[in-house]
Amino acid sequence: MDAQEQKPFVIGLDLGGTNSVFGIVDQRGQVLATNAIKTQSYKTVEDFVDAGIEVLKPIIAKVGGISQIKAMGIGAPNGNFYRGTIEYAPNLVWAHEGVVPLAKMFSDRLGIPVGLTNDANAAAIGEMQYGVARGMKNFIMITLGTGVGSGIVINGQMVYGVDGFAGELGHVTMVRGNEGRLCGCGRKGCLEAYCSATGVARTARELLETSSEPSLLREMNPEEITSLDVSIAAGKGDKLALDIFNFTGDMIGAACADFASFSSPEAFVFFGGLTKAGDLLMNPIIAAYDKYVMPVFKGKAKFLVSSLDDASAAVLGASAIGWEM
Amino acid sequence: MDAQEQKPFVIGLDLGGTNSVFGIVDQRGQVLATNAIKTQSYKTVEDFVDAGIEVLKPIIAKVGGISQIKAMGIGAPNGNFYRGTIEYAPNLVWAHEGVVPLAKMFSDRLGIPVGLTNDANAAAIGEMQYGVARGMKNFIMITLGTGVGSGIVINGQMVYGVDGFAGELGHVTMVRGNEGRLCGCGRKGCLEAYCSATGVARTARELLETSSEPSLLREMNPEEITSLDVSIAAGKGDKLALDIFNFTGDMIGAACADFASFSSPEAFVFFGGLTKAGDLLMNPIIAAYDKYVMPVFKGKAKFLVSSLDDASAAVLGASAIGWEM
Repeated sequence: MDAQEQKPFVIGLDLGGTNSVFGIVDQRGQVLATNAIKTQSYKTVEDFVDAGIEVLKPIIAKVGGISQIKAMGIGAPNGNFYRGTIEYAPNLVWAHEGVVPLAKMFSDRLGIPVGLTNDANAAAIGEMQYGVARGMKNFIMITLGTGVGSGIVINGQMVYGVDGFAGELGHVTMVRGNEGRLCGCGRKGCLEAYCSATGVARTARELLETSSEPSLLREMNPEEITSLDVSIAAGKGDKLALDIFNFTGDMIGAACADFASFSSPEAFVFFGGLTKAGDLLMNPIIAAYDKYVMPVFKGKAKFLVSSLDDASAAVLGASAIGWEM
Repeated sequence: MDAQEQKPFVIGLDLGGTNSVFGIVDQRGQVLATNAIKTQSYKTVEDFVDAGIEVLKPIIAKVGGISQIKAMGIGAPNGNFYRGTIEYAPNLVWAHEGVVPLAKMFSDRLGIPVGLTNDANAAAIGEMQYGVARGMKNFIMITLGTGVGSGIVINGQMVYGVDGFAGELGHVTMVRGNEGRLCGCGRKGCLEAYCSATGVARTARELLETSSEPSLLREMNPEEITSLDVSIAAGKGDKLALDIFNFTGDMIGAACADFASFSSPEAFVFFGGLTKAGDLLMNPIIAAYDKYVMPVFKGKAKFLVSSLDDASAAVLGASAIGWEM
């Protein structure tokens, strides 16, 4: 072991559309200290990095200074692992129009290696290092949040593809032709347009309009219904809310059946806000998968929900990239 | 280099539903000698292996005996790389009801290592070793024959998945719901049900019935139309035959757009009877891909047709597994 390998900590940065959370993490996956800034409070990436360095200083000092830090890992929307860049991220004011070399900028300032990947890949790496996918060589992480993201691990390696952008399973086409829902990516019928948190809310509005089923959701302003409201109503046994989860789970299960034909994973690991619905969502996913998957794959894949707690999971996932630098 | 690594030849076995072709191959991919038996002439796998050993003897002798052979590779339908088995192959009389340990049987008889994988994976390995995919770390091989098969290479490795059966892209669902065509796998709407040679013939019969377009194909008995007939008619500018290829290419391109979201490959490599149609098929595939793929992937993937000649490609592909043993 050389000196660098003995450094006991890494920095993880979970760069989200709203908050950017920095954490110092040890090898067992303990988050020892965190600090955060508002991602959108900065007009330029230089200002963002300046602010990041400022909030890092006290938490780095807390663990004995930068000499104790091996590397930094960043999980960010539209992150490109090969280039260490954020590319044309629609939801980041300082990154939506170009290619931002964020890994290099932090590396230059901190004097340590910095790796960057997209947020769903970071979650998959975190899950493999610290979570329910420990020891697995083949699994698919699916994040069900504002969007639907994915991180794919095959033969123990992240799948980045030729350009660093592989693993966009939220954008496989589930409804072909013109009747598919418009997706944020500009195309129609994507998995994300139906099975993200916003997709679920949209399904709720559509079902409220097309069915006459009584529902707790009818007491709300349709435009304000969120996936959490659907989840709460379903938890109370609300039939229409359960129908919404059945529809959502059916589509996710059908998509996973196609993914099995691709990489035949040991497990599908789900993460993100929608998984709060628990069995209300997972049971329809598993039922649909068993119904749609090729006979040869039936009963082989596990369906798991991330075991990492929300507050630290994204930072942990990002930090895990640091160990691989 | 130890002695074994210096052995200059491998055996390839292309085990097909009709013929089983054995070949001796050198490191440059020259097929030095071949011999064949009829796959279905044998009632039991023991008889098949006995016959195989008999026809191998003279071609092994031709290159200086078994001491010159490093290993053997087998490409076979329903082949499982991890286990070296053929499992429940519907089209093989001596393998359709169970798990046949074919790699071990040949290894025991020949005294050399024997590897086995499914035929489409073998084609991908052959393409990577000797064909248009040389030097590529990320590509997807799609075989358009009686069925639609696939072999997926990511980070320079074949994708076998947790069970050895990954890469069944002929069985992603392209038409959801009950109106999908029945597929040989027992499910509905699979890519294979539309875009295999038999799928193309079926499309021809459907279009002849539903359209009144004049066509050279109307001179034939609809039940006897093959994809080759469609190809010949399309080559003569027959509008209906061109429509059939446009329909087929559109679906293949749409499927490839989804595959890009998965592994973002450098290239899609096509192989098999349907590719004889050349640009008549490839142009609609590329046009559909550009139309359906996520903007981030647009224009990145190459669309290639295998450069290996038909007679030796499958044997070469199978033999390439031998070099990896």
